[in-house]
Amino acid sequence: MKDVVKIFDTTLRDGEQVPGCKLDTKNKLNLAIQLDNLGVDILEAGFPISSPGDFESVIEISKNVKNASVCALSRANEKDIEVAAESLRHAIKPRIHTGIGTSDIHIKYKFNSNKDAIIELAKRSVSYAKKFVEDVEFYAEDAGRTDNIFLAKVCEEVIKSGATVLNIPDTTGYCLPSEYGEKIKFLKENVKGINNVTISCHCHNDLGLATANSISGVINGARQIECTINGIGERAGNTSLEEVVMIMRQHPNLNLDTNINSKLLYSTSQQVSDLMGMPVQPNKAVVGSNAFAHSSGIHQDGVIKKRETYEIIDPKDVGVDKSSIILTARSGRAALAYKMKEIGVELTKVQLDSVYQEFLTLADIQKEVSERDLPILLDKQNIKHG
Amino acid sequence: MKDVVKIFDTTLRDGEQVPGCKLDTKNKLNLAIQLDNLGVDILEAGFPISSPGDFESVIEISKNVKNASVCALSRANEKDIEVAAESLRHAIKPRIHTGIGTSDIHIKYKFNSNKDAIIELAKRSVSYAKKFVEDVEFYAEDAGRTDNIFLAKVCEEVIKSGATVLNIPDTTGYCLPSEYGEKIKFLKENVKGINNVTISCHCHNDLGLATANSISGVINGARQIECTINGIGERAGNTSLEEVVMIMRQHPNLNLDTNINSKLLYSTSQQVSDLMGMPVQPNKAVVGSNAFAHSSGIHQDGVIKKRETYEIIDPKDVGVDKSSIILTARSGRAALAYKMKEIGVELTKVQLDSVYQEFLTLADIQKEVSERDLPILLDKQNIKHG
Repeated sequence: MKDVVKIFDTTLRDGEQVPGCKLDTKNKLNLAIQLDNLGVDILEAGFPISSPGDFESVIEISKNVKNASVCALSRANEKDIEVAAESLRHAIKPRIHTGIGTSDIHIKYKFNSNKDAIIELAKRSVSYAKKFVEDVEFYAEDAGRTDNIFLAKVCEEVIKSGATVLNIPDTTGYCLPSEYGEKIKFLKENVKGINNVTISCHCHNDLGLATANSISGVINGARQIECTINGIGERAGNTSLEEVVMIMRQHPNLNLDTNINSKLLYSTSQQVSDLMGMPVQPNKAVVGSNAFAHSSGIHQDGVIKKRETYEIIDPKDVGVDKSSIILTARSGRAALAYKMKEIGVELTKVQLDSVYQEFLTLADIQKEVSERDLPILLDKQNIKHG
Repeated sequence: MKDVVKIFDTTLRDGEQVPGCKLDTKNKLNLAIQLDNLGVDILEAGFPISSPGDFESVIEISKNVKNASVCALSRANEKDIEVAAESLRHAIKPRIHTGIGTSDIHIKYKFNSNKDAIIELAKRSVSYAKKFVEDVEFYAEDAGRTDNIFLAKVCEEVIKSGATVLNIPDTTGYCLPSEYGEKIKFLKENVKGINNVTISCHCHNDLGLATANSISGVINGARQIECTINGIGERAGNTSLEEVVMIMRQHPNLNLDTNINSKLLYSTSQQVSDLMGMPVQPNKAVVGSNAFAHSSGIHQDGVIKKRETYEIIDPKDVGVDKSSIILTARSGRAALAYKMKEIGVELTKVQLDSVYQEFLTLADIQKEVSERDLPILLDKQNIKHG
């Protein structure tokens, strides 16, 4: 029996807040319903105090989401928490997410404060949030750069105040996977009451390590990952939902899994990209347009013989129709013969050799050789076709 | 004194072979010169046997690149190696890259062969390449899924045949960082002669782990990383050059560094994207357009107080002018006041409060509030400005 890692989707909060990604209430709601269908366990719907529009969106999402917990963000103050609670009043499973920076640099430069005062604020905000909802998640902002001993102390105190989930964010995307994993392990081993709450990984991708850090976190005992579709989010973005889900699915030895219906990953990725006008890099893992495309001759030859030689994910499992063989100047005879067969032409070895030379000349000029080019290549060699 | 990790750039080979990325010789040469200026140690210029155009490009690059080693790819056969050698004849520091699949699935389904025959081919191809050049890199394709004991045996044999670099590719992007690191460690500990050669990491990003795997590799003793600008490459792409370079630079405790001039990273990323027509996701680490953009109120407030609260890389270090504060519905008063100051308007607390409400209404409608909107907001509140 595999352990379940909960997926906390923050596409509509950490994702939506970035330049260009803002959505109106109607589009936020549509996306929330898609994410609920995808199977996310917690849906962070917004930061209600930040603007009237965002407050309104959280209300509408709370009214309409049937399965996921709906979560609203707040800072560690009463006003923020009250507005968050108010926006969640229709939610079936409401969660308030509150917290404060715990690293030396945040305490000194953002708050001009000290460690004792920060702990006091943390405890007070969790206790206050508990007046409104049972499920309170606490974030220790910049936990990635927070000294582990102080972080453990903060965690222990907020557990006493009633926190149900401890979010350990690598806010600036600084940690190496080994460091982040050790941090989670340290908390598991040193915080009283830690086994009664869920540890959550919220990693940023400034050094390209968000996915690896989150996986390192769950290997070391965390049981929730905060992530976004396509990895969108502040600066270089958050952990990509599709990546962590597929890592757990493709590595059964981890003995971890999620409640995500992976067949909806590709369509959800497309919907987020379209609604927010945020392009997905063709080489994006799992959901990029090239993720299952093969172009070098060596790879195409392998995939034609057996897909698994160069693919570790069956494209159907993430909602992509099939792998594709793209004819370019790096393609070999095997790929050309395969594509010719697709248009109904079986070539002899001699024919293939002559058409292949013609093909290479064309491919060196064009980026890709398309299906429409194939009959022209055949004509040039006087080979009959349908 | 830090250990140097060599950067083997394969933008022009593994990157260029993907759908849409093909370049003509002139553009390949221009990019090669930029990469040479960037400071890459080895430049994989192409796969000469694959097409006449690619052969020609490797010749031109060999003639013109002054600092980096120039490398050409080949399969494990004499014809490929001869053509690679021929294309490199003008290179100051030529390297032939040859190899063969070593995983069970590649041996059985791609080659319909057996382990002994594969070792024989590997040895023969390295020996043959040595007739032409001193510097021969051997790749054990699909090493990520190859049994470590067999992989060690292959490595030991090709070292005896004269290989100077052992490339251990995670061809299908399957490994977890811990697994990939252990593989490199196993080779370091079990292969005779391994300390006389360089171990190279060539990781693919199918699960979003290429960067983490490469870093795990160098932590465990590898001293070369094969990577591409923007992480382009077959399927979900290769390790991103800019990410591994900046991880080593920002983590001095690793005691590892590269010869890369990081100030050229952004312009090189742009050049690759423009030439190949491959968009860079706004949230791409290090080089994305949002990588140094701040939009949530909490973050903007922090960055205005002290940049390091939310940024671990100084944008200037990677060739980006400065961090940017983008006004959206998630922005707070601090960001609005900061932007007003930039256009020469100092607001009192009362003025800021009233303009802020007006601002939020506008921001809930528009995705971003631009500099041009600011005077309109001031006019609505009857606040004078220049």
